[in-house]
Amino acid sequence: MKLALDAMGGDNAPQINIDGAKLALAEVPTLEKLYLVGREEELRPLCEAAGIADDPRVVITHAPEVVTMEDSGLMAVRQKKHSSMSVAVDLVKSGECDAVLSAGNTGAAVAASTIKLRLLPGVERAGIVSMLPSAHGHTMVTDTGANPDAKPSHLVGYAVMGALMAKYIYGRPEPQVGVMSNGTEDCKGSEFSKETYKLMAELDKEGLFPFNFIGNCEGHDIFETELDVALTDGFTGNILLKSVEATAKFFSHTLKQHIKESAVAMLGALLMKGPVFKKLSARMNPDAIGGNPLMGVNGVSIIAHGSANGTAILNAIRMAEAMCKNNINDRIIAAMEPISAALKARG
Amino acid sequence: MKLALDAMGGDNAPQINIDGAKLALAEVPTLEKLYLVGREEELRPLCEAAGIADDPRVVITHAPEVVTMEDSGLMAVRQKKHSSMSVAVDLVKSGECDAVLSAGNTGAAVAASTIKLRLLPGVERAGIVSMLPSAHGHTMVTDTGANPDAKPSHLVGYAVMGALMAKYIYGRPEPQVGVMSNGTEDCKGSEFSKETYKLMAELDKEGLFPFNFIGNCEGHDIFETELDVALTDGFTGNILLKSVEATAKFFSHTLKQHIKESAVAMLGALLMKGPVFKKLSARMNPDAIGGNPLMGVNGVSIIAHGSANGTAILNAIRMAEAMCKNNINDRIIAAMEPISAALKARG
Repeated sequence: MKLALDAMGGDNAPQINIDGAKLALAEVPTLEKLYLVGREEELRPLCEAAGIADDPRVVITHAPEVVTMEDSGLMAVRQKKHSSMSVAVDLVKSGECDAVLSAGNTGAAVAASTIKLRLLPGVERAGIVSMLPSAHGHTMVTDTGANPDAKPSHLVGYAVMGALMAKYIYGRPEPQVGVMSNGTEDCKGSEFSKETYKLMAELDKEGLFPFNFIGNCEGHDIFETELDVALTDGFTGNILLKSVEATAKFFSHTLKQHIKESAVAMLGALLMKGPVFKKLSARMNPDAIGGNPLMGVNGVSIIAHGSANGTAILNAIRMAEAMCKNNINDRIIAAMEPISAALKARG
Repeated sequence: MKLALDAMGGDNAPQINIDGAKLALAEVPTLEKLYLVGREEELRPLCEAAGIADDPRVVITHAPEVVTMEDSGLMAVRQKKHSSMSVAVDLVKSGECDAVLSAGNTGAAVAASTIKLRLLPGVERAGIVSMLPSAHGHTMVTDTGANPDAKPSHLVGYAVMGALMAKYIYGRPEPQVGVMSNGTEDCKGSEFSKETYKLMAELDKEGLFPFNFIGNCEGHDIFETELDVALTDGFTGNILLKSVEATAKFFSHTLKQHIKESAVAMLGALLMKGPVFKKLSARMNPDAIGGNPLMGVNGVSIIAHGSANGTAILNAIRMAEAMCKNNINDRIIAAMEPISAALKARG
């Protein structure tokens, strides 16, 4: 795999990207080329310090501009043509790279990937898939921010893309897909979620949906049941994702705070460190996933958390590798062909 | 305070309501009358077993029907006029009680309270306010399920009602109110959230909003910042609330699972029980709040979780008492008068 890394993206860029690059060069054997895109004058000394400047797989690609978190997504693509993010996406567009990864401005990464790489045949809108920990491994929540005002037909595409991730990346043989709602009964939902439910149920009944549609689902289904894909619009999905992350962080913070208040508890915590807290962190910390794919674009595009560290970047590169190796995009095209035709026939 | 308790509501009813009633009779000195509404033949023996049947404050009020979780909200109100829920709400409508509490079907509790009690002057729609733990105490999230397809003007009402709860029940002198969105920048949001933002900002600029409007907010703001009220529609709010609860439960479950895997960890957990885990549970367990008020109706109506236990019922009764004592509804009427006029003038 050849990967373009937006080395200037992220709250603690470029250092975290250099850290991640170093880890990936050591741990991802299929990484043939790693393009580090950004201000060469900043990147080269950091690469030298990390001992990766002379690695034959590393290509430092100069890009003078940087997209900030304040830039609007569309404006960043139009006005900062020489940003590290734009140039990184261009490397996939031109075919030099298979995948692009950025921990920068999410809206700009979505816009750059969608505009430059374009959508896969049959896909109406790109969507971000986020993996949350669950009893059976991971549940995909999609969309988590690319498309705040989604239409029901967009969610049909997200259903297919999320289920393909569950099947080929997370090894779930028969992915179960549900529509997030304010109650599991058929009658529950907003006008939008009820329309989505209806459309999914119709496609399922006609034998056009190649996975298991299970109806409405709720928060606890994500964590406790066999659910694989939780469908929602990018507005609700983004709020859901960030609230879940914030809850886990608050839980962990409150736990630490109470431990500090008691010497006995501190001893207890010491005994629990290896067997419990390390495992818990590996399960609940978003860095363990590293990045969320923007699915539906013609190329692999991974968006990492702004707060990503080197480990997160490594894990996001692993995600890109798994998606390339499993030909996820070819599978999307094949799965969407009959569904897209049926959606078009409905008008 | 005189309170009507829907004794048949909740997954483990009626026992949990009898448990809660017994606790409240012992611990809430201002509880003058407690109407236990439901099937007398079931309730009386349970009250006798709990030793509260002869308490002069207890009134067992017979209601032959029970609203189930499968009943649709509106149909339950129309067709089960003699349900424990309907009869309990009627006790507030007739003025015999100040407040009603139910752990039954939320949709039915919302419908019964709204239809029978009607809305307060100036309030366009009733909304549920849920309290989440935060660094400064509690953040109100509203609406969490009464109104899935809300309009921006409905959220203005929720802003006022949530802020009044923060101020008078949780002692926050200058409540901060934000609009939940997929990013904090002004430009972020769905069409709906952006319209809500705009309307809130206009009312604030005109000096009509008597609290602090701080713009967009996200999941982490609920837990980590000085935010007091997070505004959203009932669809997104319900998904947010249930996902937060599910995350806390999953975190706690995973923690317990890892503890069980190691004898050393079990010893550590034993040391942490009192100083850490009990405090953490008191902070994260929804039973510590007990019930969420349905605000905007003419009377105090509290909706408890279906999985409520006796402690949750006690705490929900305490919430009702605090709302009555602080004349929250009179304050809503006063605060909504100029805002409602301004909203009407806009058309």
